[in-house]
Amino acid sequence: MNVHTAYTVLDLVGTFAFAISGAVAARQKRLDLFGIVCVTFLVACGGGIIRDICIGAVPPAGLSNWRYLAVSLAAAAITIVAYAPVRRLRQPVLFFDAIGLGLFAVSGADKALAYNHSAELAILMGMVSAVGGGVLRDVLLSRVPAILEREIYASAALLGAALEVGLTEAGWSSIWTAWVATIGCVLLRLSSLYFGWRLPVFHARESGNRSEQ
Amino acid sequence: MNVHTAYTVLDLVGTFAFAISGAVAARQKRLDLFGIVCVTFLVACGGGIIRDICIGAVPPAGLSNWRYLAVSLAAAAITIVAYAPVRRLRQPVLFFDAIGLGLFAVSGADKALAYNHSAELAILMGMVSAVGGGVLRDVLLSRVPAILEREIYASAALLGAALEVGLTEAGWSSIWTAWVATIGCVLLRLSSLYFGWRLPVFHARESGNRSEQ
Amino acid sequence: MNVHTAYTVLDLVGTFAFAISGAVAARQKRLDLFGIVCVTFLVACGGGIIRDICIGAVPPAGLSNWRYLAVSLAAAAITIVAYAPVRRLRQPVLFFDAIGLGLFAVSGADKALAYNHSAELAILMGMVSAVGGGVLRDVLLSRVPAILEREIYASAALLGAALEVGLTEAGWSSIWTAWVATIGCVLLRLSSLYFGWRLPVFHARESGNRSEQ
Repeated sequence: MNVHTAYTVLDLVGTFAFAISGAVAARQKRLDLFGIVCVTFLVACGGGIIRDICIGAVPPAGLSNWRYLAVSLAAAAITIVAYAPVRRLRQPVLFFDAIGLGLFAVSGADKALAYNHSAELAILMGMVSAVGGGVLRDVLLSRVPAILEREIYASAALLGAALEVGLTEAGWSSIWTAWVATIGCVLLRLSSLYFGWRLPVFHARESGNRSEQ
Repeated sequence: MNVHTAYTVLDLVGTFAFAISGAVAARQKRLDLFGIVCVTFLVACGGGIIRDICIGAVPPAGLSNWRYLAVSLAAAAITIVAYAPVRRLRQPVLFFDAIGLGLFAVSGADKALAYNHSAELAILMGMVSAVGGGVLRDVLLSRVPAILEREIYASAALLGAALEVGLTEAGWSSIWTAWVATIGCVLLRLSSLYFGWRLPVFHARESGNRSEQ
Repeated sequence: MNVHTAYTVLDLVGTFAFAISGAVAARQKRLDLFGIVCVTFLVACGGGIIRDICIGAVPPAGLSNWRYLAVSLAAAAITIVAYAPVRRLRQPVLFFDAIGLGLFAVSGADKALAYNHSAELAILMGMVSAVGGGVLRDVLLSRVPAILEREIYASAALLGAALEVGLTEAGWSSIWTAWVATIGCVLLRLSSLYFGWRLPVFHARESGNRSEQ
């Protein structure tokens, strides 16, 4: 399996994981049928679309490859029809999200490398692929993106993308690289959730702390 | 009139319709002169700019073709100078919006086809052209985009774009195709407003319904 | 120093000025370490990334040139480590912001011209480079972008970009052009802050003024 095939498969699995998490969030917000499909698709493909526009791969695969749309529609349909079982899984949004995060960070970095871009751009693009959909979701739902305020989320994507690019540059086989990088990212994300790890917040005692919102 | 000329003309008429609706909304929000011009331009051209970036037509026509800027400025000026008459028209925002929606869905799908993209991408791009400006407006005004929560809006754009692409692929003349698709979209939108048609919302009784905002 | 070198240097100085203002705003909002770095980078490079995507310069310099990332990281680090001195400067956010605004308006317009685009596109792109980062910041922090509601901000960027393009087309040397245009923009912005200049807001007495938010 070459690099291109690898990231196509990883992308579709990650798309399904993100789409399920997006559909659950959209249904919880009581959006209508179209709103659910829309948010599902954007959470699943938004990060990849931003990545493709930035690396010059237009039209973006998320828009031109019917598989991404089909996977998103399937995830939305499953969540609408079988909401109770999907919902009863313990914190399914967070779990699927972590898996999607790892898969997208790796496949996104891979694709930037496949387009002959630099290691720095590949790492940034891996992170953008992974967190872009969630940021779009939060912007559309008119709230501050969760990744800016709390929890180790984008940092985990950054680790996954950096592992993928570093190990690839070190000459590892693409299969092993992808597994190590994905598992590294998912493990860091799930551990941070389980143990409550946070990044430091700097208290601004010197300022008046007036809320500007 | 060939396809290229057709979508240029449709685009300018749709731009004016959207610009008027954007300028009325911006003035109601008490934005300043620059804010009104900005929101007017983004509602009028934002969807087309996103479409052009996605299909690789850079620089986007909305930015490089002075006609779009001129039409937006004219609409903003008319709304500022003659606000009372524009406002007194019964629900002018909704009416102009419906016309712009149909024209943009058709011209957006047309342009993607003219750039030799697939039918799926053309339908998606028609919808994005039509609803993108409104989504940008709602994101800038810091509210959940109306199309995700209520009413048949993006669905009408989807119908218009699908009709345009389907009839074009079926070999219809581009003039008839454009009329049928535009009128189909506008009729569905206005009917849904008049009769109060909605898409289903799924009540999430199984969940705790905690507001996450 | 040719035009390309000139805008690279201007871009880095403007990036640092914007990054400092972004880092101060992010720290005031109590974002975590990653959130501060992210907002710093987006305020510093977001406008340039949008510009590069629109003029077809992909991958955007803000993502592919490590200098922009390094300058953003340095500004974030300085603001975190030496927050008290940075903060004690009188209204540092506004001051650095005005300088960044002028530098970005000029370098953004320059880059569009260097890519052989029209004067209209160059002026629009200068303004987008200058205000894009701030708009992204406000959208991410879930508030209405300041430039739409109050103060002469984007208008000052528009003046700077228009001066740059106009004087360049008039045949001035690129060094003098850049100085005159940057100082014009910074002066207009600082004067409007000092004297409290505003653009007109149109009171919508004819409408019911129902808040739609």
